[in-house]
Amino acid sequence: MQTLAYYNGKISEIDEMMIPLTDRGNYFGDGVYDATVVRNYRIFGVDEHIERFFNSMAAVEIQPPFTRDELKNLLQELVEKLAPTSHLVYWQITRGSALRAHQYPVASAPNLTVTIMPNPVTRELQMRNHAIRTEEDIRFYMANVKTLNLLPNVLAFERAVQAGVDETVFYRKLADGQTRVTEAAHSNIHIILDGALVTAPADNLILGGIARKHLLAAAHELNLPVVERAYTLAELQRADEIILSSSGLFAGRVTEIDGVPAGGRASELFLPLQERVIDEWFALTE
Amino acid sequence: MQTLAYYNGKISEIDEMMIPLTDRGNYFGDGVYDATVVRNYRIFGVDEHIERFFNSMAAVEIQPPFTRDELKNLLQELVEKLAPTSHLVYWQITRGSALRAHQYPVASAPNLTVTIMPNPVTRELQMRNHAIRTEEDIRFYMANVKTLNLLPNVLAFERAVQAGVDETVFYRKLADGQTRVTEAAHSNIHIILDGALVTAPADNLILGGIARKHLLAAAHELNLPVVERAYTLAELQRADEIILSSSGLFAGRVTEIDGVPAGGRASELFLPLQERVIDEWFALTE
Repeated sequence: MQTLAYYNGKISEIDEMMIPLTDRGNYFGDGVYDATVVRNYRIFGVDEHIERFFNSMAAVEIQPPFTRDELKNLLQELVEKLAPTSHLVYWQITRGSALRAHQYPVASAPNLTVTIMPNPVTRELQMRNHAIRTEEDIRFYMANVKTLNLLPNVLAFERAVQAGVDETVFYRKLADGQTRVTEAAHSNIHIILDGALVTAPADNLILGGIARKHLLAAAHELNLPVVERAYTLAELQRADEIILSSSGLFAGRVTEIDGVPAGGRASELFLPLQERVIDEWFALTE
Repeated sequence: MQTLAYYNGKISEIDEMMIPLTDRGNYFGDGVYDATVVRNYRIFGVDEHIERFFNSMAAVEIQPPFTRDELKNLLQELVEKLAPTSHLVYWQITRGSALRAHQYPVASAPNLTVTIMPNPVTRELQMRNHAIRTEEDIRFYMANVKTLNLLPNVLAFERAVQAGVDETVFYRKLADGQTRVTEAAHSNIHIILDGALVTAPADNLILGGIARKHLLAAAHELNLPVVERAYTLAELQRADEIILSSSGLFAGRVTEIDGVPAGGRASELFLPLQERVIDEWFALTE
């Protein structure tokens, strides 16, 4: 098998798996997910990802039909069916299957999906420079939950693709006329400014990334001060370094914002940080 | 058949239809939908619903693989496969099927789903009183598009079910400390205040309902002044009448808000309006 899909106990290649039309993921995006990268059958940060997944389920009142350990064992068993090269492991749960009605179905168990597909991780990909574009954040105030309601993220990311850049970064317009950078279409974003790593607080406007946690931990170990506070679009533009992080990109350096060169001016702080999170990933998946 | 599902040309009962896991509706809610009620094979407001559906597709950049007439003919052909009793006709389109990636797939056509299921419409159901609850609107700023990103609506409607009431009505907290009533979990909401029908403007905070259009048209015909403006939670609470409208509930009278009696104080204005939209529906589906 090149890819693997699991759906409520059935297993196939991803593009051959069929699911009921009535899965509430399909009508409402009524579910949550999580994902991480595996190599050598070592699922990076699996306990942290499963903990976040359980938090996501609780936030949308989906009752988990398994324990954390049962899910972890299932993921481990499934990744071992493919090659030991690096893969993205993605799993989602929806509230169940029923004729379409907003209210929770009474007689349906949640549906669990797992997909595993090749996802090359190399130092070169991790260390390349990124260009981003910015736009106003119009998403709902539940960005802290990893839900299947991702249409604004899809539209925003496609605009990056159309613009020939790597990501779209969102900012909110605040009541006082200020802006607040929140996160990106599928990444968190951080800056190095005045000698500190500045990152938005993990409230309901951003997803508290696992890669973000590892990045902040690496900064602590390197004695780089970490400041969790809201920061503005102007601060993003004039930051010494701008860093994207996600489960597949541990500390991606940004060197262009909306067509203008940006960041890349504090190599002595940034490069050791980037090296540390890349090294950690390779060490833990050796 | 008691129900009917159509998916890219295949037809079955709804609960027997299988779709690919890779349908982007399932991962991202990457699609839009519309729905209306049919009786005697007359699809109420079909042209208006199809027009709105085309607007929804344009808003999310899904290229329709059919014309308005082709879709209309397909819906007509499908409803005629069931009994002439009243049914809800629902249709959705997603961007296509592909391995999960935010960017638009290059080699996939959109997926069209149609479902038809029994949906009794009676004067008694239309004329019963409704109780509602209110909560802050945390949805995205694309409420004008009928997308499959409905998790906040699902959660809010379930809270109504748990509270033993009929709907959850949303309000925004505005920068100036005021509130603005937007709409409900799956309905629009309007008030009669000081002798006029007041309804929120059809901007990006509400879905411009077809039932809303018919309600406003009926008000015009009855010489009831219509005012499209933002209104507050306090105005909702002290309104003379409060009216829910949706494709399945043409002018539902609200008589309780958050456990407190409300509305029901302008029968001379409300009842003729309600009668008119109910009569219109029955006449057009005769």
